[in-house]
Amino acid sequence: MTQPFSHVAIIGLGLLGSSIAHAVRAHLPQASLSGWDSDAQVRARARELALADAIPDVAADAVRGAELVIFCVPVGAMAQAAAAVAPGLADGVLISDVGSSKRTVANALEAALPGRTIIPAHPVAGTEHSGPDAGFASLFHGRWCIVTPPEGCDAALLARLIAFWEALGARVEVMDADHHDLVLAVTSHLPHLIAYTIVGTASDLEEVTRSEVIKYSAGGFRDFTRIAASDPIMWRDVFLSNRDAVLEMLQRFTEDLTELQKAIRKGDGDALFDHFVRTRAIRRSIIEEGQDDARPDFGRKHNGD
Amino acid sequence: MTQPFSHVAIIGLGLLGSSIAHAVRAHLPQASLSGWDSDAQVRARARELALADAIPDVAADAVRGAELVIFCVPVGAMAQAAAAVAPGLADGVLISDVGSSKRTVANALEAALPGRTIIPAHPVAGTEHSGPDAGFASLFHGRWCIVTPPEGCDAALLARLIAFWEALGARVEVMDADHHDLVLAVTSHLPHLIAYTIVGTASDLEEVTRSEVIKYSAGGFRDFTRIAASDPIMWRDVFLSNRDAVLEMLQRFTEDLTELQKAIRKGDGDALFDHFVRTRAIRRSIIEEGQDDARPDFGRKHNGD
Repeated sequence: MTQPFSHVAIIGLGLLGSSIAHAVRAHLPQASLSGWDSDAQVRARARELALADAIPDVAADAVRGAELVIFCVPVGAMAQAAAAVAPGLADGVLISDVGSSKRTVANALEAALPGRTIIPAHPVAGTEHSGPDAGFASLFHGRWCIVTPPEGCDAALLARLIAFWEALGARVEVMDADHHDLVLAVTSHLPHLIAYTIVGTASDLEEVTRSEVIKYSAGGFRDFTRIAASDPIMWRDVFLSNRDAVLEMLQRFTEDLTELQKAIRKGDGDALFDHFVRTRAIRRSIIEEGQDDARPDFGRKHNGD
Repeated sequence: MTQPFSHVAIIGLGLLGSSIAHAVRAHLPQASLSGWDSDAQVRARARELALADAIPDVAADAVRGAELVIFCVPVGAMAQAAAAVAPGLADGVLISDVGSSKRTVANALEAALPGRTIIPAHPVAGTEHSGPDAGFASLFHGRWCIVTPPEGCDAALLARLIAFWEALGARVEVMDADHHDLVLAVTSHLPHLIAYTIVGTASDLEEVTRSEVIKYSAGGFRDFTRIAASDPIMWRDVFLSNRDAVLEMLQRFTEDLTELQKAIRKGDGDALFDHFVRTRAIRRSIIEEGQDDARPDFGRKHNGD
C-alpha cells in the first residue's frame, strides 16, 4: 500500500491517541509521527514510551510539516486544541479527529480553523482504560471507523483518510454527521448513561452495603461497572455535545422500561418472555459480524482456568 | 477433605446443573452422581456427555439413595420438579437448589416437600449460554454462593452444604432469604432488566437500522446484548418471583436516571462529571476482590491479536 500520509500529528495522547501511534508504527512504519498533549506529565510519559518521533512542548511545533493532524481530545476540548496548533499548520494539511459526537465537533473545528480542510471521523473502538499507557496497536482491527465529510469536501483527501484508517485495520463507513450522532446515541451514549446510572444507584443504597454489591457483582452488575469506569471528562463532553439525540433515545428507553415494569407488576409472564426471546437474535448477529467475542462471558478468565 | 455427600442428584441439566456435574467430577470424584431433566432430549444429550453415572427417565429414580438433591431448574418450575422426585427421596436427604430468587423458592419447596430438610442456595455465577453443553467445572471458582437456611435448620446438614460448595471452588455466605432477594435485585435482576430493555429499544428504532446497531455495537451496546442473550424462561421466572424487590430497585434507578437526564437537558457538566467520577471506584473494588477480569475490555479478543 502507498503511504496515505507521510507525516501524521496526533494531538492528545490518551487511549485513542496512543493507540493510533502504536497502530501507525505497526502498519505505516515509514510515516513520520509527531504528538502533543496539553498535560506535561502525559507528554513526559509519552516520550518515555517513545509513542512518536517528536513530542515537543509547544503544540504548534507538533504539527509543523504534518499532512494529517488528528485531534484525540475530549470533544469539549477540540476548539482549544485546534487554536493551540493553528500557528504551526502546513498548507494543504488535512484536519481530522476521533470524537464520539460529530456535529458539534465539526462546527467547533470549522470555527477554530477557518479555511482548512476538515473531515471528522470516529473509530468505534475503545476500552475502559485511559491515558498514554492504555493504547495498543490492534484496537482498531475489525472495528468500524465512521467518517463524516462535510458537503463538497476534497475527494482526494477523503480517499486518503479512508486509506489511513483501513491501513490501521479498521473498516470505514461514510455517513452524515447528524445521522452518526443519532446512531451513536443508541449504540454507545445511551448504554454509557445507563451504566453510569445503575452503578450510582447501587452505590447509594442503604439496605444493601457496598461490600455486598461488590461481592455479588458477578450476577450481571459487574458488566456495567466496566463501562462506567470510562473517562469522566470524555463522557461529560459527549452528553453535552450530543444532547438532543441522547435525550431522544433516553425517552424511547424509558417508555420501553415502563412497559416491562408494568408487565412485572401485573405478573404478565408472557409479555416478559416474548420480550426476552426477541433480544437473543441481535447478539447472534453481532457475533456473526465479528463485533464481539463469541466465547461465553466475553472470554473472561475464571480463577483456576 | 472428607466427602460432604456420598451421592448427589442434580435435577435440571442446563448450564448450572451441568456445571455442578463437571465440578463434582473434578473436585469430589468419589461421589456418586445422578441426574434428571424434564426434557427427554436434554437427558439424551446429558447421557452422551456422561454428565452423571445415571440419568434415568423417571425423576423419582434419579434421587433414590441421594444424600443431596439440587434443583437446577427455572424458579417457576421448582414445585413441579419437587413433586416429580418426591416418591424417590431417601430419609434424611438434604434438598437444595440454585435459583436466583430465594423467598418464593423456599416457600415452593417447603409446600411441595413437607417435612423435608430444605436449605436453598444461590451460586452467583453463570454465562449467557444455556443447556447441557454449556456447563464447565470452573464456573464456581472464586464466585460467591449464598446459602439461605430457614430458621432452626439442621446445623450439621448446613455445614455439609457449605463444605460441598467450598469443594466446588466457591466462597460461601449465609444470608436471610429476604435480604438475598434485595441484594440480588440490584446486583443481578435490575441489570438484566435494563439490558433486556435497551436491546429491545435499539431493535425497534425506525431512524437507525438494525444493521447499524450491530455494526457500531462496539461503542458499548454489545456488552448489554450478552446479558440480554440469557435464558428467557429463567429470567421471566426471576422477575415474577422477586417482583417487589425488583420494582423497588427499579424505582431508585429511574429516579437517578431522571436526575442525569435533567443534568443533560440543563447542560450541567459539573453534575455529570461528579457522578461519572464516583462510579470508577466500585470497578476497582470488584477487580481487587477477584470478581472480574482486570484485563481491558474483559480480555476480549481483538481481531489480529
